[in-house]
This record gives sequence, C-alpha cells and structure tokens, in this order.
Amino acid sequence: MRHKARTARADLDQVLAAGFVCHLGVVVDGTPMVVPTLYGATADTLYLHGSVAGRSLLGAAAGTVCVTVTHVDGVVLARSVFEHSANYRSAMIYGVPRPVVDDEEKLAGLRVLTEQVVPGQWDYARRPNRKELAATALLALSLEEASVKVRTGPPDDGDSPDAELGLWAGVLPLSTVWGTPVPDPVLPPDVPLPDHLRRG
Amino acid sequence: MRHKARTARADLDQVLAAGFVCHLGVVVDGTPMVVPTLYGATADTLYLHGSVAGRSLLGAAAGTVCVTVTHVDGVVLARSVFEHSANYRSAMIYGVPRPVVDDEEKLAGLRVLTEQVVPGQWDYARRPNRKELAATALLALSLEEASVKVRTGPPDDGDSPDAELGLWAGVLPLSTVWGTPVPDPVLPPDVPLPDHLRRG
Repeated sequence: MRHKARTARADLDQVLAAGFVCHLGVVVDGTPMVVPTLYGATADTLYLHGSVAGRSLLGAAAGTVCVTVTHVDGVVLARSVFEHSANYRSAMIYGVPRPVVDDEEKLAGLRVLTEQVVPGQWDYARRPNRKELAATALLALSLEEASVKVRTGPPDDGDSPDAELGLWAGVLPLSTVWGTPVPDPVLPPDVPLPDHLRRG
Repeated sequence: MRHKARTARADLDQVLAAGFVCHLGVVVDGTPMVVPTLYGATADTLYLHGSVAGRSLLGAAAGTVCVTVTHVDGVVLARSVFEHSANYRSAMIYGVPRPVVDDEEKLAGLRVLTEQVVPGQWDYARRPNRKELAATALLALSLEEASVKVRTGPPDDGDSPDAELGLWAGVLPLSTVWGTPVPDPVLPPDVPLPDHLRRG
C-alpha cells in the first residue's frame, strides 16, 4: 500500500505550510459540525479564524475539536475500479482550542494567519484597531496531537493480472493555482498592484 | 455582507458537481473526527467512499454525520486586515448515512462516485468483481438536509474611509487545475491515453 501514516514533525509542517484552509470539526449537541475556515500555523500552534464559524460553533469549540487540512495532489487511475485512489496529503489535529483574548496575542495570531494566506499582506494592509480586534474571534490550538497521512505514486495494480488488460493507468495530477489579481471595481486605476502580490 | 446562505436546490447541485472530495465529520466517543474522502452525488443521494475512513469511523457513521464540500475560489484582499476574507462555495449535508450492502446498489453507487471523479472511467476500467465489492465500504447519505454558503465578489470596504488609504484591494483568484496525465512507470509505452482522459 502506498498510503502512509507519517510521524515526522516535518511532514506536519509541510502539510500545514502548503495551504491556509482547514475543516474544523466540533460537536454541537451530540452532532458533528464541519466548517471550513482559515488558519495560520506557527511551530507549535494553529490559529483558526472564528468569525466564519459563528457563535454556536465557538461555544462547541470549548470541547475537543478536530482540524483537518487536506491537499489533493492527483487522482490515481488503476486498471481496476477497485484500485482507484487519490494522491493526497492530509493532517488531523486534535485538541481543545483556546480562545485568544489578549490583544497582543490576537494581533500576533492574526499576523500569522494573514501571512499564511498572502505573505507580505500584513505589512501592507491597515492593521486591526482595538474595536476590530474585539470583534475578531481567534482560536489557538496546540499542534501537539497531530497525525499526517500521505499517498503518493502510481496505482497499485501494475504488477497484478490486471496489468495484462492493456488499459491505461497512471495519475491525473491536480494542483491549486493563483490567477491574475482582480482589482476591486471601485479601485482607482492609478493604485498599483504591490510587489508582494506579483507571483511568478 | 457578501457572504450568503443559499437555499435553492440548484446551488447545492452546483457545489457538489464542482468537486469530488468532501470532509466527513463523525463523533467517536464524544470526540469529533474529520476525514477527507471521495464522494459522488445523484439527485437525492451522496455516496461516500468508506475505505479511507476505516472501521472506527464507519461505526461512528451509524449516528448523524456532517459532510462538508468546500471550493475556495479566491482570497479577498481588503484595505484593512479586518475585512479580509475568502471567496468560496461550501455545502454542508447532515444525516445518518446508510451503509450500502446490496451488490446492485453498490455497483451503481461506485459508478456515480467514479464518474464524478473522472467521467468516462467507469466504462473504461475493469469493474469490481464480487470479492472486491464485498471489500468496498460505501455509504449513502440523503441530500435532504443540506445548506449552502457562498461568498463572491470584491472586498467590502470599497466605500469605507479606508478606501482613501490608496491601497490595492481586490481578489486573488484560486483554481484547481488538472495537469498532464502521468503514466504508471510500468505501463507499456504502446498503451494509449484514452479519449476521456484528454482534457482541453
């Protein structure tokens, strides 16, 4: 099997660094609820943006949560439907998140989150004022309890009898790409695109 | 606010049709667990591939689950950090999934799932035999209880005092793209790429 559980800390860091959207799972009145939200990771902490989540979710986040980050790298086409699979990297983090209440830490956490999404943006945009900080919900989750699963490589039936079927088999790669920045329609045309948003 | 809850059935269909990976949330011993898996959707049912999930998860899926499908379409860069956001389409489906045990329905469900990922592949690859069917876990979840949230468009602070700051604001589009198919290294070089895998 090419599905592998990874235990090295570097694997976790790599999966977290490769994205900025996670799925946050909580239990609300015994029922699971899974919502997408933005995150930023430091060496030991995952910061989660709580605004999207809403109040009921934040209340539920007083218990254990599960945060999952998934990157789908390709679809694995085997000779048999049974051996079809996906290449992916996925991290699951368990823990009881801590609401960030201190203004200094909240600023630091929002910086981590903003820089994870768009490096350079924190120093460019107007930073939150006191009122905005108060209106921003931020959760901090320890990275201590985490697991990583990865699948890479070709299909698993290349040495099976099915290989004699003469069917094409391999991987259809998938990737996430940035497009050309789209200015706000009301942006004055003389406002330049800053350097940190010029990719490639 | 440009964040919108959508209630039309067409919105749900559109979100589900645009992907094939979901995050399945279950409760295991009171703790939420969120795992990525593949899905396929019909008009009224979501079929979930259970093999990735593992046995403990399938046991937990005897209760209510939450399945979330999310497409991130872009990052919304506002003048202020506070107004930063993401453009996305997300669907949440709640229900108690039914394990598919009938061979005919399992074949039909696997066909839906396979065709959702790679249209044309079901008729091309070798279909599951009886033994493989028995080894495949498939869950069926009604689409009856579902909600959709969508955010589109530019940042929200174009008419705020921050517009005077002279900062660039707009959207960085994100999209998921297929790459060039990568043949299995052991594939004989004379096996052609089938037509249904030639995209663009």
